Amino acid sequence: MSWNTFGRVFRFTTWGESHGPALGVVVDGCPPGIELSEADIQPFLDARKPGQSKYTTQRREADEVRILSGVFEGKTTGTPISLMIENTDQRSKDYSEVAKAYRPGHADYTYDAKYGFRDYRGGGRSSARETAARVAAGAIARKVIPEVEITAWVEQIGEVPLLYSRFDKAEIRNNPFFCPDAETVTRWEQLVDNARKSGSSLGAMVTCWAEGVPAGWGAPIYAKLDSELAAAMMTINATKGVEIGDGFAAVQNTGEGNADPMRPGADGSVEFKANHAGGIAGGISTGQPVTCRVAFKPTSSILTPVDTVTRDGEATEISTKGRHDPCVGIRGVPVVEAMMALVLADQKLLHRAQCG
Amino acid sequence: MSWNTFGRVFRFTTWGESHGPALGVVVDGCPPGIELSEADIQPFLDARKPGQSKYTTQRREADEVRILSGVFEGKTTGTPISLMIENTDQRSKDYSEVAKAYRPGHADYTYDAKYGFRDYRGGGRSSARETAARVAAGAIARKVIPEVEITAWVEQIGEVPLLYSRFDKAEIRNNPFFCPDAETVTRWEQLVDNARKSGSSLGAMVTCWAEGVPAGWGAPIYAKLDSELAAAMMTINATKGVEIGDGFAAVQNTGEGNADPMRPGADGSVEFKANHAGGIAGGISTGQPVTCRVAFKPTSSILTPVDTVTRDGEATEISTKGRHDPCVGIRGVPVVEAMMALVLADQKLLHRAQCG
Amino acid sequence: MSWNTFGRVFRFTTWGESHGPALGVVVDGCPPGIELSEADIQPFLDARKPGQSKYTTQRREADEVRILSGVFEGKTTGTPISLMIENTDQRSKDYSEVAKAYRPGHADYTYDAKYGFRDYRGGGRSSARETAARVAAGAIARKVIPEVEITAWVEQIGEVPLLYSRFDKAEIRNNPFFCPDAETVTRWEQLVDNARKSGSSLGAMVTCWAEGVPAGWGAPIYAKLDSELAAAMMTINATKGVEIGDGFAAVQNTGEGNADPMRPGADGSVEFKANHAGGIAGGISTGQPVTCRVAFKPTSSILTPVDTVTRDGEATEISTKGRHDPCVGIRGVPVVEAMMALVLADQKLLHRAQCG
Amino acid sequence: MSWNTFGRVFRFTTWGESHGPALGVVVDGCPPGIELSEADIQPFLDARKPGQSKYTTQRREADEVRILSGVFEGKTTGTPISLMIENTDQRSKDYSEVAKAYRPGHADYTYDAKYGFRDYRGGGRSSARETAARVAAGAIARKVIPEVEITAWVEQIGEVPLLYSRFDKAEIRNNPFFCPDAETVTRWEQLVDNARKSGSSLGAMVTCWAEGVPAGWGAPIYAKLDSELAAAMMTINATKGVEIGDGFAAVQNTGEGNADPMRPGADGSVEFKANHAGGIAGGISTGQPVTCRVAFKPTSSILTPVDTVTRDGEATEISTKGRHDPCVGIRGVPVVEAMMALVLADQKLLHRAQCG
Repeated sequence: MSWNTFGRVFRFTTWGESHGPALGVVVDGCPPGIELSEADIQPFLDARKPGQSKYTTQRREADEVRILSGVFEGKTTGTPISLMIENTDQRSKDYSEVAKAYRPGHADYTYDAKYGFRDYRGGGRSSARETAARVAAGAIARKVIPEVEITAWVEQIGEVPLLYSRFDKAEIRNNPFFCPDAETVTRWEQLVDNARKSGSSLGAMVTCWAEGVPAGWGAPIYAKLDSELAAAMMTINATKGVEIGDGFAAVQNTGEGNADPMRPGADGSVEFKANHAGGIAGGISTGQPVTCRVAFKPTSSILTPVDTVTRDGEATEISTKGRHDPCVGIRGVPVVEAMMALVLADQKLLHRAQCG
Repeated sequence: MSWNTFGRVFRFTTWGESHGPALGVVVDGCPPGIELSEADIQPFLDARKPGQSKYTTQRREADEVRILSGVFEGKTTGTPISLMIENTDQRSKDYSEVAKAYRPGHADYTYDAKYGFRDYRGGGRSSARETAARVAAGAIARKVIPEVEITAWVEQIGEVPLLYSRFDKAEIRNNPFFCPDAETVTRWEQLVDNARKSGSSLGAMVTCWAEGVPAGWGAPIYAKLDSELAAAMMTINATKGVEIGDGFAAVQNTGEGNADPMRPGADGSVEFKANHAGGIAGGISTGQPVTCRVAFKPTSSILTPVDTVTRDGEATEISTKGRHDPCVGIRGVPVVEAMMALVLADQKLLHRAQCG
Repeated sequence: MSWNTFGRVFRFTTWGESHGPALGVVVDGCPPGIELSEADIQPFLDARKPGQSKYTTQRREADEVRILSGVFEGKTTGTPISLMIENTDQRSKDYSEVAKAYRPGHADYTYDAKYGFRDYRGGGRSSARETAARVAAGAIARKVIPEVEITAWVEQIGEVPLLYSRFDKAEIRNNPFFCPDAETVTRWEQLVDNARKSGSSLGAMVTCWAEGVPAGWGAPIYAKLDSELAAAMMTINATKGVEIGDGFAAVQNTGEGNADPMRPGADGSVEFKANHAGGIAGGISTGQPVTCRVAFKPTSSILTPVDTVTRDGEATEISTKGRHDPCVGIRGVPVVEAMMALVLADQKLLHRAQCG
Repeated sequence: MSWNTFGRVFRFTTWGESHGPALGVVVDGCPPGIELSEADIQPFLDARKPGQSKYTTQRREADEVRILSGVFEGKTTGTPISLMIENTDQRSKDYSEVAKAYRPGHADYTYDAKYGFRDYRGGGRSSARETAARVAAGAIARKVIPEVEITAWVEQIGEVPLLYSRFDKAEIRNNPFFCPDAETVTRWEQLVDNARKSGSSLGAMVTCWAEGVPAGWGAPIYAKLDSELAAAMMTINATKGVEIGDGFAAVQNTGEGNADPMRPGADGSVEFKANHAGGIAGGISTGQPVTCRVAFKPTSSILTPVDTVTRDGEATEISTKGRHDPCVGIRGVPVVEAMMALVLADQKLLHRAQCG
C-alpha cells in the first residue's frame, strides 16, 4: 500500500515527483485562527533549497510555495491547507542510461520490484525533492507550537566531527553546512570539496533539539514520542539511524551513570540534573529539551562506476554524472527540523484531546 | 491521546498493567485459515519469561496464554484474535516509597505530568510486562509470514561486545543471554553478575535479522519499511536508538564504500555483493536480509540511591530494591523479534492490497 | 481486511464470538481521572440482556462485565480499558443443520465467500451478541460526555407506529419494548406475541435523541457528525437505513418548509425555531438535540422454511428453531444509544484537539 | 479535528474552498500500472458540472482537471495521484449581507461556532463545490474496479416519483435530471422550473446500483460495506438519509417477506431469488447488485426570506439571491456514483490484503 500521510490528528499528505510539474502537501487538522501566509513558509524552503553553494546539488529551484486553500483573510480556517511548489528546473537531460539500469543504493530496483514500474526521471517519488513539501508543512507545524524552539545542525561529516566546545548557535545559519562553529566549517569545506571533485560522497550526522516542550506530550504505547520521532526521521531520504538522548552510547553506560536525577525547582516545578534520556521517559516528554540524532549515509549517486544490472538482467556498471549533493545529510537539516515540528504539533493536539 | 494500537492492516492492540489482573492483545486483520493454537504462541512467551536465570528479574510469571476468540476448529477465522495472559505474581509488596517519589528514568513523573495520576504498582502500563502481549501477537505474525525467518541476539552488554568471528546461531537459545557464542557467554555471566550484586545495571545492544523477505515490501513515504521498524523498535521499553544496516557507521563511510553493487543472479533474479543498506532501499525491501540494531539503556531501577522529588515536590532520594533485570536489554531479544514479525506481516498484507 | 475498531481518538475494539468463551472490548483514548467501576457499566448491559421477557430471545446470559485494565483506585488512568464478558449460555445444541446450509439473511454465505470458512455456532462473529461489547464501551463513553443526555426508543414495530401524542419518556424503561407509551405497549405485545407464536418476525424503527450537545462538534468533510452517526448505526446487526432529523421526509419538503429559522437567544446565544436538520448543519452540531432514526429489518431467523443451498451447492430449505428475537430491533435500543454516545465522545475529544 | 481523508487503504484527501484559487484531491494507494489520463476523469466532472441547464446553478465552471503526480508514461505508478481543478467563476459578488448573517440550513453558524471563523465566500469549505474533487477521485476508483458497473439516477423530486415501470437506463444521460424515463422528465421540468421561478427549492431521492461486485467484499464489524456506504453517502452536502436495499420499507415487512432465498446457480455458484438486502449480508457483499438510496433535502438557499441572526446576535432575515440549484439532489447523482466507486475500490483492496 502506498501511504503518503503522516500524523494522527495534525496530519499531512505529500505528493509529487522529482520531475513532475509540481509537488505539494495537504495539511489537515491545523487549528483555526493562526496567522499564515506564504511569507511564513518561504524562509524554511529557502534554507533547504538546492543550488545555493558548491557543496550541494546544482539543481536550481525557486521553490516558491503557494497556499491554495485553508487560509482566509490571513488566518487558518481549520480546513485543509493545500500548498503547491512548482518544479522549474527539471532539466531535459538524457535519462537513457539511468532508465536502462538500476542505480545501487537508490530506490530504482525496489520500486520496480514493488510496482513493476520505474519513473527514472530523477528518482520520481523516491527523490529527496519530496522533502520540500514537508519542510513547507513543517513551517505550519511550528506555528501550532509557538512555545517550542527547534534547532538542528550538522554534527559530523564523514570522519570529521564538530568541535562541541566551540558550539555557537548563531553560527548555524551563517554557513552552507548548518555548522555551529566557523572553524569546523573550514575543515568541512575542504572535505566536501574534495569529495565533490573526486566524484565521491560523504555521510553526515544531524542533531536536533526542541526546547520548550512541556512535560506530558507523547502517549503509550505505540504513539510514544520517541517512537513517533524515530518513524519521522527514518522517512527522510538517506537516513540509516536515529537515537534519542545519549542513544547508542547508553549501551556502555551504567544505571548510575545514565540516571537523570531530579530535584525541586522553582514554584513547585521539577528540575533535572542531567538529560541522558533526551527529554523523554516512558514515551512522554519530561519538560527537558527533546533531543535526537540522525545518521545520513553518503549519497549513493557517485562518479565512480558501480556494478549493477539492467532491467533486462544484464550485468553493467553505472556512474552518476548529474547534479547531486556530495553530502546529502547537509540539506537534511531543515528536513529534520520540519519533522520534529510536525511530530510535536501532532502530539500537542493529541495531548489536548485526551487530557484537556 | 492514548494509542495502544500498532499496524496498518494487520493491527494489534495491547492492554493491561504490570499489577492488574491480566494483560492481553487483540490482533485484527489476520488472514483466515491459518492453523493456530496456544501451543504456537507459548514457546515465544516462555523465551521472554522472567525468572528463568539469576541474570533476569526474579518475578515468576507462568505467562500462560489463552486464545479467547478468532480461532475456530484450530484455524484463524479472519476475525479478531483475543489473547489473554493472567498476572499471577503481583507480590503484595510495600509500594509506599515508590508511591511517594518519582523513580528517575522511569515513566513515573511523565505519566503524572500527563495524566495527573500514578499507578505505582510496578509502573502500571509503562512496565515492560506489556511486552508479553506483543510477543504473543508476534507469534501470530510469524505464521502470516512463513517465508521469513527472524533471528535476534544480544550483540553487546555494557562495554563487552560479542566476538562475531565466533558467531553460532545454534548457540543463541542455549544460554540466558541470547548470545550466539559460548565464550562470550562466560564473560557476560561475570559482568552481569557483578552488576546484579553491586546493585548497578548495564545497557545492551540487540541485533535482528529477517531472512526471506522478498523484494517489494514497504511503501513510500511515511510507511517505509525502515520507518515502520524504527517506530516499532522505539516503542520497546528502555530503547534509545535504532539503526538499519550499517546505521551510524555509514556516517563515516564514502559513497563507494557504502555501495551495495548488484549483479545478475540465477534465473533472471538480482544479486547483491554487499548489504550495507540492511536490505532496504527507498523504504522498500531489496530481497536481502532485513537487518536492524537496537540500543537498550541500562535498567533505571538500581540499588544506588538517586536524587529525586516526591509528588509533593520535596527533595528525597530513592533506590529500587525490588525484583529487577540487571540488564533489561537481554529480555528485549524476543520482543525485538516480535516487533520485526509484526511489521513484516503488516507490510506483506499492505503490499498485497496495492500490488495484488 | 478485518476492522473491528471504531473511533478516531476515543477508539474501541471489540472481539469475541457468539459461542466462544468470552467477548470483550478495549477502549483506548479515554481521558484520565474519570470515576469508573463495573457498576457504571452493568445497568446498560442489563438493559440489553436477552431472556428478560418472552418478546426477546430466551438465551440467558448473565452478561457480567469485568474491568481488566485502565482503572486504578476507582478512576480511569488514560490507558486502555479492557472489558470482558464471559459467555455462559452457549447451549450445546445440535448445529448439524445450520453447519450444512446457509441461512438466508444471515452472514453465513458471505463469511464463507470471504473467508472460506464458517463458524456455525450461533453466527460466530456476525452474531448480535457482539453488541454487548459495545454497549459496555458506550457506558464509558457516556462518562466522557456528562453534558449530554441520550435517549432512544422504539418508534414502530411492523406496521404499528408509536402514538407520539402520548410520548412519555419515563415510560421507556417500564416495558420490554423501550416504548414511551403504555397504550402502544399493549398493541405491540399482541403483535410481537403473534409473530413469535407463528414463527414469523417483525421489523422495527428506533429513534435516538442526544440533548446537550454544544454547537461545534463534528468536522469537515469525511468526519462529519452525521456521517459518523450513519456509519455507527449501520454497523448494528439488522440495520438497513439511517436518517438524520427529518431524513427521507425532507425529500418531499420545500426549502421554506424545511428551514430551521434562527433568532437571538438569551445571553447572546442563538435559538432555532425548528429542528428539521436534526441538530446538524454542514456536518457540525448546531446546539439543538441531535436526532436520528434507524431501521431494523425483521429477524432473518424464522420458523417458516426458506429455500437455500448447502455448502456443497445442493438445494435445500432451512428453518430456524433456536432461541431468537421475534423483533430484533427492540434490543437494538441500548445499542443505538451506545453508538450515539461513542460517536459523541469521540467528536468531543476531536473538537478539543483542534479547537482547544 | 478536521478530517478530510476517506478510505482505509485506497485513500483520498480533498482540499479547497468554493471561492479559493483551486480545489483538488490526493489519491493514495492506487494500484500501479493502470492507464490513466485527464480524459478518463473529465467526463465525470462534465456530468457534474454546474451551469448546463436552467435546472441547476448558473455558476459556470470549466472544471478542467489536471493530473500533477502519480502518473508516468500514461500509467499509475502506485504513488499519490494529485488532481487539481482551478476555480474560474468565483464572481466577485457582494458578500456583505451573507458575511453579516448566518444562512439557516447552511454551515455558516456551525463553522463559526466551531472555528470562531467564517469564510462567507459561497460557503468556503462547506460548499458542494468540494464534491468536484471527489468526482475526480471517483473516476480513478472506477478504474480500480473494472468488474463493477455503477449507475445512479434520480428516483424522486419533491413529491413526484419516477415511474419505475418505464425505467430505461439509456435515458439517464439524455436529460438534465439523470432520470431514466423521458415522461417523468417532462413532469420534473415543470416542477423544478416552478420552484426556480418562485425562489423555492425541492428535495430529491437518488438511487445507486453497483453490478458485478463479487461476494466477499466488506468486513466485520466497523468496516462493514453498508456502514462504509452510509458514511460515504452521508458526507455529501444536503444528504439526510441513507438506506441499503429495501431500507426503511423493511420495517413493515415480515421475516418471510424480507427473505432472499437462495438456490444453486450454474457452475457451483449460488443464486438469489430476491434482493431485499441490497446485496449485503453481515456487512459483506453477496454477489448481487449492491443498492442504496440517498435522501437530499431541498436546497437551503431560497429567495423567501427566513429569520436568522447576525454574527453580533441581532435578529434579521435573509434570502439568497445568488446562483443556486433549485434541487441540489439532481447534481448529487455523479457524486453518489463517485462515493460508491470509492468505497468499493477501497473494499476490494482491503479484501485482497487479508484474503489474498
